[in-house]
Amino acid sequence: MSSSRLGMDSPARPAPAPAALLYYVAFSQLLGLAVVATTGTWLGVYRGGIAWESALQFNVHPLCMIIGLVFLQGDALLVYRVFRNEAKRTTKVLHGLLHVFAFVIALVGLVAVFDFHRKKGYADLYSLHSWCGILVFVLFFVQWLMGFSFFLFPGASFSLRSRYRPQHLFLGGAIFLLSVGTALLGLKEALLFELGTKYSKFEPEGVLANVLGLLLAAFGAVVLYILTRADWKRPLQAEEQALSMDFKTLTEGDSPSSQ
Amino acid sequence: MSSSRLGMDSPARPAPAPAALLYYVAFSQLLGLAVVATTGTWLGVYRGGIAWESALQFNVHPLCMIIGLVFLQGDALLVYRVFRNEAKRTTKVLHGLLHVFAFVIALVGLVAVFDFHRKKGYADLYSLHSWCGILVFVLFFVQWLMGFSFFLFPGASFSLRSRYRPQHLFLGGAIFLLSVGTALLGLKEALLFELGTKYSKFEPEGVLANVLGLLLAAFGAVVLYILTRADWKRPLQAEEQALSMDFKTLTEGDSPSSQ
Repeated sequence: MSSSRLGMDSPARPAPAPAALLYYVAFSQLLGLAVVATTGTWLGVYRGGIAWESALQFNVHPLCMIIGLVFLQGDALLVYRVFRNEAKRTTKVLHGLLHVFAFVIALVGLVAVFDFHRKKGYADLYSLHSWCGILVFVLFFVQWLMGFSFFLFPGASFSLRSRYRPQHLFLGGAIFLLSVGTALLGLKEALLFELGTKYSKFEPEGVLANVLGLLLAAFGAVVLYILTRADWKRPLQAEEQALSMDFKTLTEGDSPSSQ
Repeated sequence: MSSSRLGMDSPARPAPAPAALLYYVAFSQLLGLAVVATTGTWLGVYRGGIAWESALQFNVHPLCMIIGLVFLQGDALLVYRVFRNEAKRTTKVLHGLLHVFAFVIALVGLVAVFDFHRKKGYADLYSLHSWCGILVFVLFFVQWLMGFSFFLFPGASFSLRSRYRPQHLFLGGAIFLLSVGTALLGLKEALLFELGTKYSKFEPEGVLANVLGLLLAAFGAVVLYILTRADWKRPLQAEEQALSMDFKTLTEGDSPSSQ
């Protein structure tokens, strides 16, 4: 059974994007910007702002991770829903590039925290947050390399691509959710280290950080909702449809998801 | 377009469950049992075990939440994949009952922590973990009531059920993931409160708890993978198929997901 018959692509129709999809995408962007702004407010108002050459270097870490691994990664997943009628290749390149930006920004955030730990003499990689973070980095990198090799680098056959595609989609969503979860763990860690027992006094910093946590979870949920709505998937363009039909005719019996 | 043409149900075939599905379900159960066993080990070896009438009352909270809102809730979501050829109604009742068990066990865990806080004079509901936990409880309860009213209580029309079904599926998955995330936040909180700076010395308790965190994330990921595999959805039984066909013929133009 082909992946399109399994409902992974809707049949070709050059229709405009569903109105509800546009509202949900706008809402996701509002939430994403609120997450970044709240992170900036938290670091600016309660943590002294951001700098590389001082104790403020730590603050580079949460800001970069939120921008790179939450906001940009989330948006990178949404490009196929937003750019519905562009050529598939253009959308793919945008998807891959947004992930490169996300990775570079996250790398700056990673260097910041390791450098800060080194200067302070703190231990590395002992916490659940750090373990999850390293897991996210490794999975993100492997996923990008695999995605590039299968979908952008010419050479992978149509059959190979169709076989790998569902795994790529699932792992992409899972890495994004793990990124959001890791951010929540890091936020909690930063709060408990700094506020200690004051956290239970409903200090303004604690309440703001809790709101940031809920915004993070809401952004993750809305992105996931948009990605999983079957009727919001990107429709096949006319030429992709034709290609897919040709392929089906040629390889009947060798289709990717028959088991 | 009907939900079955969107790939939400596979066409009727009385085939046995795919072999790979069985392996994944077995793996998910191994992970779930490992999560419960590791939680028990952590509480038993490092936290003095469990009792209601003492300071150990707190320990009832993580154990009940892990068993109810993680393991049982996860398994409740899997019943439609496991019981593929039973009558739909039987599977529905099992799905609803497992959620009732999960809710009752989680309620004991909730009472334990509030009672413990009251006896100790601790503040309630100040942390991100507690906010997420209350959100999980409210959503879980609303989702159960809605599910019962639409799918088990006779009266909801076929058309209403088909309209609500995708929302129920998405919200169910989201509540489960939020439960796993909330458990991770609580685990982190319990570690930082108790271990403090010893956490960074790779104390055995910290390492065990980190492993528990990874097991929790892995259980969530495997359950999510099983739920999202399009070709592992429960096939329509012959009589459900016939009913659905009849309905389609009767209500052409009033189908649930046309927009």
